[in-house]
Amino acid sequence: GRGILVRSPDDRYSLGLRARIQLRETFLHVGNSDTNEINVKTLRLVVHGNVLVPELRYNIQLAFGGGDFETGSNSPIFDAFVDYTRFRDLNIRVGQFFVPFDRARTIREFALQLVDRQLVVRELSLDRDVGVMLSSNNLFGLRELLGYQFFIGGGDGRNRFAAYAPGPITVLRLTLRPFGTFDDDQEGDLTRAARPRLALGVAAAYNFRTSRAQSTYGTAFTAGTTNYTHLAADLVFKYRGFSLLAEGLWRRADVNVLERTETSGAVTREPTRSGYGYFVQGGMMVHPQVEVSARWEELFTRKGTDPQLVQLAQTQGKQLGGGVNLYLNGHALKLQGDYFYIFGSAGGDARHLARLQLDASF
Amino acid sequence: GRGILVRSPDDRYSLGLRARIQLRETFLHVGNSDTNEINVKTLRLVVHGNVLVPELRYNIQLAFGGGDFETGSNSPIFDAFVDYTRFRDLNIRVGQFFVPFDRARTIREFALQLVDRQLVVRELSLDRDVGVMLSSNNLFGLRELLGYQFFIGGGDGRNRFAAYAPGPITVLRLTLRPFGTFDDDQEGDLTRAARPRLALGVAAAYNFRTSRAQSTYGTAFTAGTTNYTHLAADLVFKYRGFSLLAEGLWRRADVNVLERTETSGAVTREPTRSGYGYFVQGGMMVHPQVEVSARWEELFTRKGTDPQLVQLAQTQGKQLGGGVNLYLNGHALKLQGDYFYIFGSAGGDARHLARLQLDASF
Amino acid sequence: GRGILVRSPDDRYSLGLRARIQLRETFLHVGNSDTNEINVKTLRLVVHGNVLVPELRYNIQLAFGGGDFETGSNSPIFDAFVDYTRFRDLNIRVGQFFVPFDRARTIREFALQLVDRQLVVRELSLDRDVGVMLSSNNLFGLRELLGYQFFIGGGDGRNRFAAYAPGPITVLRLTLRPFGTFDDDQEGDLTRAARPRLALGVAAAYNFRTSRAQSTYGTAFTAGTTNYTHLAADLVFKYRGFSLLAEGLWRRADVNVLERTETSGAVTREPTRSGYGYFVQGGMMVHPQVEVSARWEELFTRKGTDPQLVQLAQTQGKQLGGGVNLYLNGHALKLQGDYFYIFGSAGGDARHLARLQLDASF
Repeated sequence: GRGILVRSPDDRYSLGLRARIQLRETFLHVGNSDTNEINVKTLRLVVHGNVLVPELRYNIQLAFGGGDFETGSNSPIFDAFVDYTRFRDLNIRVGQFFVPFDRARTIREFALQLVDRQLVVRELSLDRDVGVMLSSNNLFGLRELLGYQFFIGGGDGRNRFAAYAPGPITVLRLTLRPFGTFDDDQEGDLTRAARPRLALGVAAAYNFRTSRAQSTYGTAFTAGTTNYTHLAADLVFKYRGFSLLAEGLWRRADVNVLERTETSGAVTREPTRSGYGYFVQGGMMVHPQVEVSARWEELFTRKGTDPQLVQLAQTQGKQLGGGVNLYLNGHALKLQGDYFYIFGSAGGDARHLARLQLDASF
Repeated sequence: GRGILVRSPDDRYSLGLRARIQLRETFLHVGNSDTNEINVKTLRLVVHGNVLVPELRYNIQLAFGGGDFETGSNSPIFDAFVDYTRFRDLNIRVGQFFVPFDRARTIREFALQLVDRQLVVRELSLDRDVGVMLSSNNLFGLRELLGYQFFIGGGDGRNRFAAYAPGPITVLRLTLRPFGTFDDDQEGDLTRAARPRLALGVAAAYNFRTSRAQSTYGTAFTAGTTNYTHLAADLVFKYRGFSLLAEGLWRRADVNVLERTETSGAVTREPTRSGYGYFVQGGMMVHPQVEVSARWEELFTRKGTDPQLVQLAQTQGKQLGGGVNLYLNGHALKLQGDYFYIFGSAGGDARHLARLQLDASF
Repeated sequence: GRGILVRSPDDRYSLGLRARIQLRETFLHVGNSDTNEINVKTLRLVVHGNVLVPELRYNIQLAFGGGDFETGSNSPIFDAFVDYTRFRDLNIRVGQFFVPFDRARTIREFALQLVDRQLVVRELSLDRDVGVMLSSNNLFGLRELLGYQFFIGGGDGRNRFAAYAPGPITVLRLTLRPFGTFDDDQEGDLTRAARPRLALGVAAAYNFRTSRAQSTYGTAFTAGTTNYTHLAADLVFKYRGFSLLAEGLWRRADVNVLERTETSGAVTREPTRSGYGYFVQGGMMVHPQVEVSARWEELFTRKGTDPQLVQLAQTQGKQLGGGVNLYLNGHALKLQGDYFYIFGSAGGDARHLARLQLDASF
């Protein structure tokens, strides 16, 4: 479902409430070890609506799953923003929300066609931040051909309650949709429309003096800050139930290691994380409610970067998998199963990952 | 109150919202020490409704009280499940919810006739877990005479975000209600109906390779897993304002101590908790809105089990108490007071516990 | 906006839901250091309504901002109380809420005319506690001339889940409103009414055996408890868009240092915090939606009190600042900017604090 929405008679105010849960069972086999994890992976509450005029909209999303919190933070706030959409070429958004960088990360989580996001995207994309976005999905009114998103924000990520060296993140994303706008913010082609749909996107970002290991998220540095440069390119294609999503991501830190010398003479050394990667995934609706899907992805690291990132790429950097989805109510109520074969350049035991998931929006 | 419920005109969707608070003052006297605790003991938000068809229902319960969180977890999720009740003999529930083991623990918290649950139940019952339940309250359509609940789940409890050795919990509960179904999931006989009502239940559970000290909750083991066997028998009787609730519980671990030898040669030893106990409690509505109630309970431990559990039984294992409830709006708005005399087999100072509580559902 | 409110047809029940967010950018310059902080400072959910009768009202407020949690607590509960307003001279409130001590602290946060509260108030006022309040805003029915608030509570603050030495807090506040009641619980004079409005208040409180450094909040003592005496006097004046708010606060602990001797002979010493201060702030609506405002405040400490409090007063005890507010929908949607020059009696580098804020209620 889409929750409830209560409107004032004059359309000046509205308030809607939605909820969503995700139940997940994860089975992992590696070497001679079997492990299991079953939980309510996430639970979301969304409050949304408009104030004063229909064009002034707000959106609040709280995430209550055990893994949804930042280390050391009790705050469940994911999204908290206000949109002003009066001007076709200059929509304005202020608050905390997804940095508009690549396609894969800005697809909403309830609309994935495999159980979870790509490793490449979880490692290399930009996560939520606080700032201002200027955007349009129909720039110059050219039949929704052109879009852009420009973001400037703190660059140190969501729910950061600390004073740090000032240094913003700046993001520019450009999109081209030759056949007009479509649901490229949802994976899969549930509409199965007989016309081809295509979205191409490129983006660049510069995060000046960030205090976090993965640019807008991850461990907080204590030894200083670094500058990260980000690039992305992505493609969405849909036609008659077939969907293709492909993306490349690239991230480089200015320095490989941050160093701070304590007054005692001891030196704190903190590595930064530079790498790149890509993924390709596709799906086919084999029945109005059933989809099969597959994905291949590779993660690479830059020489001299964080040894932990290097090890991640060497042991889990290559992932090949497939899945089946049963859409009971579209993405709003679905059963998902997938399997991944996970390996890396270093050899060693491969991982076999099997997951079963119920994703339900109310 | 019962909160609000917004329905779509075709009954395909609905969403309801409820809240509940519990304000509690606790005074404890033991030896020559007096202590006091006053707080919002719990605050709940419940979102519930149906999607697609009336028989597909969902329920989300968040608990925000300071004592409602698992150690090390920020997640306030208590319940998150979906019910499919199309088939009389095979209701299906998937998600996180109370393990359907004994009567006392599955009585909802807002419907207690004393301020808090029994020590025996808090120690020996099974807490929330993630899994699947098959059940019926009217098996074979025999005038609601027979009921069953079969549960299979992870066995490691709610909001566990860790991979562990696989090993499910399996629970089977059987109930007999000779005079048909009634509100045996609420304590007290607020309806004061002139017909006798009786529910008898027995249950068994086997938690294979659990990682937690009290089977589905409590401290997480680091030295390995154990298997727990559980048994329960319970009785509810209500007649003309009189209510009786009695229950026996039994839990045994396969081993008394888990041991893990570190590579350094050091040995980590973690005790398991085996014990049994029972309680009897009764209430009488002396006025349409006033009830007096009393309870007696005893907790016993198995030889060789966790010394902390042994000490608990020896100092607080016997509890005798009584209370008065003023029902302003049934269980949805009530004032409760109770007093308990708490002692054990070891002698020593008895505890005098007095509590005052406002429980209000909105 | 004011959220939604759903009422039962007979007015016996209602449930309303509101949300509010505060986005804040803080820039601080001190010496040769510049720091920046940008985040969703707070996010609130409010559930409110009535049960059984219109006079029995409830209010729940959850606060989800990263800085809204008590140290060591996961609970987002700010308010959870029930009001019974049947009797003009004896309104009753039970639960967790603001201690009715001084005017400035009991002005609701969304209704401030500068970006944040006064340092003097944050240090010396009384924060939320659990207890019972008796009050009236129109005592004896004298055209709303007289008001009082009497509070008795645990005295150890909100969401305290610990047993401690019993010892209540008692608060009495008296108010005089010579020209009748008005919106003195909101800063600024957004109504710009042509009649003068004045509120005068005095209050005293005694917190017997509290376990917290700032009386009802702050670090928890481990070495024992102390008694705090509190005094407050305050004034609100509004006329034709001009508003004046002034207040003095005074707090004294019975002892300057708590000492506990461990069995090992080691002594734990914990200082208490005694001090006083005042502030004056004013605002002028220079346009129906634009206000300019200014504030001056001073914090003083008592000899022998907590050295950290002394240092705070010596480095940041004097604050002079001004701000501009753009009220897009009154206090429910506003943009605020302010600047403060912060210094102290000890000399040293002054602080320059600049803030920009969006406060939006939905």
